[in-house]
Amino acid sequence: MNSSFKPYYAVIFTSKQAGSTEGYSKMSEEMEELAKQQKGYLGIESAKSQLGITISYWENLESIRNWKEQSDHLIAQQKGRSDWYSWYHVRICKVEREYEFNKKIIN
Amino acid sequence: MNSSFKPYYAVIFTSKQAGSTEGYSKMSEEMEELAKQQKGYLGIESAKSQLGITISYWENLESIRNWKEQSDHLIAQQKGRSDWYSWYHVRICKVEREYEFNKKIIN
Repeated sequence: MNSSFKPYYAVIFTSKQAGSTEGYSKMSEEMEELAKQQKGYLGIESAKSQLGITISYWENLESIRNWKEQSDHLIAQQKGRSDWYSWYHVRICKVEREYEFNKKIIN
Repeated sequence: MNSSFKPYYAVIFTSKQAGSTEGYSKMSEEMEELAKQQKGYLGIESAKSQLGITISYWENLESIRNWKEQSDHLIAQQKGRSDWYSWYHVRICKVEREYEFNKKIIN
């Protein structure tokens, strides 16, 4: 942990897919690309088992709000509700602390 | 969003596995069971692709601290660093807002 740590934000998006996955992968990639171009974007992490989890990281709440209201993203959200997801849950979180482990490779 | 929303905490654990996975699944299940028995535990969500993501939810920071220092969990953390993970990142987050979508089934 760093004493100069500056809090930032995470949007935790957990989802279950509905029957249709048509167009999902393409849209998902496009949205990730688009997110990267937004002001305040810091990163994205995702994994999928039965549950899908995507976490995007942002500098502040304003950048999250802007991204939520970005027009192409609104279309994707609409399509998500009509076609792709049976359920999703969105959590807006303030990252207050973090730490990392990296394995040292000893030759 | 609910006007009576009470903030709670999320621990975002993202990881990459090292070569060895021996004993990993068993320990992972045991830790999930053990977490459920802790005071302040609210839930867990996980998914795995190239990246593993596990998010556990807690009532407050104290319950996260207690869980981090729980003795069996300390052994699992040690084993994680020595055997299972090449990398992990832990983020302690305050969940400030949330909303959910549930598809209405129309017969």
